[in-house]
Amino acid sequence: MDIPSLIRATSALVEKRLGELLPKENEAPCPILHRSMRYSIFAGGKRIRPLLCTEAAKACGGKSEDALDAACALETLHTYTLIHDDLPCMDNDDLRRGKPTNHKVFGEGMAVLAGDALLTEAFRILSGVPENSVYSAKDYVRELANLTGSLHLVGGQALDLEGEGRTLSLEEIRSIHLGKTAALIMASVRLGGMSAACSSLQLDALSRYGRDLGLAFQLIDDILDVTSSPEVLGKSIGKDVRDKKATYCSLVGLEKAKEEARALTTSARQALEVFGEREREVLLDINDYLLNRDY
Amino acid sequence: MDIPSLIRATSALVEKRLGELLPKENEAPCPILHRSMRYSIFAGGKRIRPLLCTEAAKACGGKSEDALDAACALETLHTYTLIHDDLPCMDNDDLRRGKPTNHKVFGEGMAVLAGDALLTEAFRILSGVPENSVYSAKDYVRELANLTGSLHLVGGQALDLEGEGRTLSLEEIRSIHLGKTAALIMASVRLGGMSAACSSLQLDALSRYGRDLGLAFQLIDDILDVTSSPEVLGKSIGKDVRDKKATYCSLVGLEKAKEEARALTTSARQALEVFGEREREVLLDINDYLLNRDY
Repeated sequence: MDIPSLIRATSALVEKRLGELLPKENEAPCPILHRSMRYSIFAGGKRIRPLLCTEAAKACGGKSEDALDAACALETLHTYTLIHDDLPCMDNDDLRRGKPTNHKVFGEGMAVLAGDALLTEAFRILSGVPENSVYSAKDYVRELANLTGSLHLVGGQALDLEGEGRTLSLEEIRSIHLGKTAALIMASVRLGGMSAACSSLQLDALSRYGRDLGLAFQLIDDILDVTSSPEVLGKSIGKDVRDKKATYCSLVGLEKAKEEARALTTSARQALEVFGEREREVLLDINDYLLNRDY
Repeated sequence: MDIPSLIRATSALVEKRLGELLPKENEAPCPILHRSMRYSIFAGGKRIRPLLCTEAAKACGGKSEDALDAACALETLHTYTLIHDDLPCMDNDDLRRGKPTNHKVFGEGMAVLAGDALLTEAFRILSGVPENSVYSAKDYVRELANLTGSLHLVGGQALDLEGEGRTLSLEEIRSIHLGKTAALIMASVRLGGMSAACSSLQLDALSRYGRDLGLAFQLIDDILDVTSSPEVLGKSIGKDVRDKKATYCSLVGLEKAKEEARALTTSARQALEVFGEREREVLLDINDYLLNRDY
């Protein structure tokens, strides 16, 4: 499968649907808030989480249309985490995907509120997803809230913040990666599977695939922060070193980190063995594609 | 009905249940995040929104137990708005309910994350509320997300923020009050009614009651900011004047604002006429109690 083409096609569908689902720019009571929300939503991400959601649905025999709104909720939630993560009191980043970060354009207060509104919007969207014989909308809400709350995603962000300026253990870094990145990728494939009324065997397989792919994804991010250029990444690089932030790379070295990323990618691949060869093909290709990316 | 006793009794139930529902202080991956969440949740509010939720349920013939988890979700969501509202990039408040605000104790970054986690937690709790023949958990989620997102609550906060330093019109101030305060109070009584499988006539009546009570509540807040003392309020006073913030009081004067609060309280009272005399009694008493408060 040609993954870059699939990414473009899925992005187009997701962006069209996000445009329909989110409040318009001129809507009351505060149009500038809606401009701020849409600025970050349409800042040109690759929509990897929506892609994983719709492809997981297809792997389980479902239709991507039935997973589309869940995919949009995932991207909406992901965007809120980026806006809040970039704030001066958090990572203090000026650049995201080659553009000024939300608070650089709209101010800190408005960026906090745009993040809050997008987080709320994710749950509003989820409350309207198509239901099936196995999963109802409340299952999606519980799933996303669980994986993105204080026990997982926000917990990972908090540990990352709390660990600044001290040396983290490998175990702590792993917890941060699990929370900050793997949790939402896990949620993406799980919600996709659920939209196709998947079996619990399939759901478990998708969980392991999502977790290991997510951990590999974050490792590769850390590696690229050392080896890439800002032009390719569209964001500041060498930041972790500059911030004296312990990363997997700084603790175990670049080669060992690459090896670990490959091992995780293999594990993610193995997790999909419960699916038929044709069913798992695209998820496997996405896995390989993300391991070998240079941006 | 002795409202102060009722407030104490409901608070005790709500606080016990919140203690069960929220993650414990020592839970992984970041215990300090859970301490920060619990610090603000248990900072001693009067739990007016949970009270309105459980009493609306009773007015519709339901049991307060069936509304308890929705009440806890409302308080959890309310607490997130307070934490974010107090941030330096928003209202920049050092004191809340007589105690240092969350970011003064845990730092700005952790306060942003505690708010994010509590917002997420509100939806996690809602996904597990008891369902009935009329309303399912997804209806509660949609209801809360709608009234607390960019079109209502967060929109009101954003308009408030955006309007700083310029003279607001009465209409804009009304929009801010509707969003910042009335929307969540409306959600409180509506979720309570829904937990009792209320009729659409009852739901409409509760909406108007909640909206007008909420608007009166915010007007009285503005009035007390001018007339009360920090000892009684447990927070800084005269802040609106100091920040050159246009309030309803500064635009129309104290007497006219008091008159408007009384008119809204009367309108809230009238909204309840669709209920029987015994059913509406407690909601009416809460209405009178909140109008006449001095804190």
